[in-house]
Amino acid sequence: MAITGYRKLAVAATLTIATSSQGLLTTASKSDGVYKYNFATVPLLAELIKLITSALLLSRQMTADPKGTIITKDWRNTMLYPIPSLIYLVHNNVQFMTLKYVDPATYQILGNLKIVTTGILFRVMLKRHLNKLQWIALALLMVGATTSQIGCSGSGLSAPMQGYMLGVLSACLSALAGVYTEKLMKMNDDNLYWQNLQLYSFGVVFNAARLLIDDINVGFVHGFTLFPSTMLRGYDAVTWMVVCNLAFTGLLVSWIMKFADTIVKVYSTSMAMMVTMVLSVFLFDIAINLQLVLGIITASMSLQLYYINPLDLIPSANRHDGLSQASR
Amino acid sequence: MAITGYRKLAVAATLTIATSSQGLLTTASKSDGVYKYNFATVPLLAELIKLITSALLLSRQMTADPKGTIITKDWRNTMLYPIPSLIYLVHNNVQFMTLKYVDPATYQILGNLKIVTTGILFRVMLKRHLNKLQWIALALLMVGATTSQIGCSGSGLSAPMQGYMLGVLSACLSALAGVYTEKLMKMNDDNLYWQNLQLYSFGVVFNAARLLIDDINVGFVHGFTLFPSTMLRGYDAVTWMVVCNLAFTGLLVSWIMKFADTIVKVYSTSMAMMVTMVLSVFLFDIAINLQLVLGIITASMSLQLYYINPLDLIPSANRHDGLSQASR
Repeated sequence: MAITGYRKLAVAATLTIATSSQGLLTTASKSDGVYKYNFATVPLLAELIKLITSALLLSRQMTADPKGTIITKDWRNTMLYPIPSLIYLVHNNVQFMTLKYVDPATYQILGNLKIVTTGILFRVMLKRHLNKLQWIALALLMVGATTSQIGCSGSGLSAPMQGYMLGVLSACLSALAGVYTEKLMKMNDDNLYWQNLQLYSFGVVFNAARLLIDDINVGFVHGFTLFPSTMLRGYDAVTWMVVCNLAFTGLLVSWIMKFADTIVKVYSTSMAMMVTMVLSVFLFDIAINLQLVLGIITASMSLQLYYINPLDLIPSANRHDGLSQASR
Repeated sequence: MAITGYRKLAVAATLTIATSSQGLLTTASKSDGVYKYNFATVPLLAELIKLITSALLLSRQMTADPKGTIITKDWRNTMLYPIPSLIYLVHNNVQFMTLKYVDPATYQILGNLKIVTTGILFRVMLKRHLNKLQWIALALLMVGATTSQIGCSGSGLSAPMQGYMLGVLSACLSALAGVYTEKLMKMNDDNLYWQNLQLYSFGVVFNAARLLIDDINVGFVHGFTLFPSTMLRGYDAVTWMVVCNLAFTGLLVSWIMKFADTIVKVYSTSMAMMVTMVLSVFLFDIAINLQLVLGIITASMSLQLYYINPLDLIPSANRHDGLSQASR
């Protein structure tokens, strides 16, 4: 099960493309600026597709290699899998509270704090060592992402203190979900598809429960959303592309958590945010601004710094032979 | 004549403070928003003060240590000293031409290119090695300085191509002046004050000539500026502080070129630009903006990266004993 660096890079690049497509597809799925379908149904269908895909892949794997496919069947183990969904549930509520104090542009900017909080939790919870360059790289990725998002309004840092506190809490929860998922996927040598099966089963349950609760809260005025005919009301080909792309993105993230790490995911999604902005410049004929250019330069430098091997910085004349083989 | 790292740092910090004071003093020297004195006279008086100071320090040095004070008296040598003034002359003309195509805000932003052009000329002309981290650091310093200057207007990148070309040329000339001065100060072991004496003599001549030419161009309607009574018209205590601070800044730059290098100067002046903006926030009660915070973080990370010793990045377990003593 040796995964090469090139394969990780390929998956990370695919995740970047899929994540940036998600924003563009979601925009394209609107008609006259509004959703003609119930957007809350998208995550549930995506979870279902991920669940079915993982089940199919697992059964194929078990047929091909029955002995090599490691599966731990233990309820104590399985009960760790709903926790990411629970963290996201709390996160969504904190997000909702934060948006009472800060405007969406400021919320988006505060969201970049998760880059640094992920680094901290990665160090603390997963006991992973980050060298000085890597800490600087994470700080710069956060700065670069923020720079690219600076608009003329909302750059005044003037929300009430509660807004900032909740924004920081939100960033911590978001980082916690990522780091916890990595810990979960790596805690044993279980087959990835089997782990996905457990993860997405809870995902389906939580998302279905959310739709049901929403229905109850509004007294079923839109009908019973979990009925297929109600759920798929207004769906067209683009909507299905949104759903499938979201499912694909989720499967890529799982793979990255198992075989690479949370930081790879953070880079992929931060880069995707900027790729989306660049594509928007071309697709929607928006003028490119200096902030975006500066943000992209900073993020690219950050990526280079994070993956520099300190040994390559030392002139070969000063290098001891054994040293050049030591890995970071 | 061993100069410690701490002494270089102290001089660089002093240069940062002096440079940022310069902007604030210049603003303070205005009455009701306009200069009550002829601002073009400030550089000439500063050159004169630097010349007199250097002459006094040199004579003291020669009295104290007649044998240890190295002085090369050779006209071929001396004729290298007007070249920085000549480069600045060309630079000022290019600047004037550039401002026909771009607005001052864009010109200021283009000016940050000199950080990277200085790195390139430092490598090419002075044959100095920069490692990968140091190149990344210079790019980030440029990005950070630019980020801090982003305003809401003028961030659209929409000047004509000639404007950008001239802006790049201006950045190259500015870098050339710095790198050439460093080469000049380091070409031999001549005493710093003797080198200054030659440098500032030409500085006085060029600045006096400029004032004379300006007078001729306007037909002496303001009188003969080089007469002391005309030159000092409207001067008050603050004006003299502007002059003395400019002279002090110049002397610090000379010292840095001789005993440290151009990159130290680039960091000092770029940091000074941001220090001035922070002080302006407090002094003039301007709201702090996110761009400034992001720019300062980026520049601070850049400074750390530039001066990181790659050997410190390698865990000591992997380190060969001889290696830890090797210097960059």
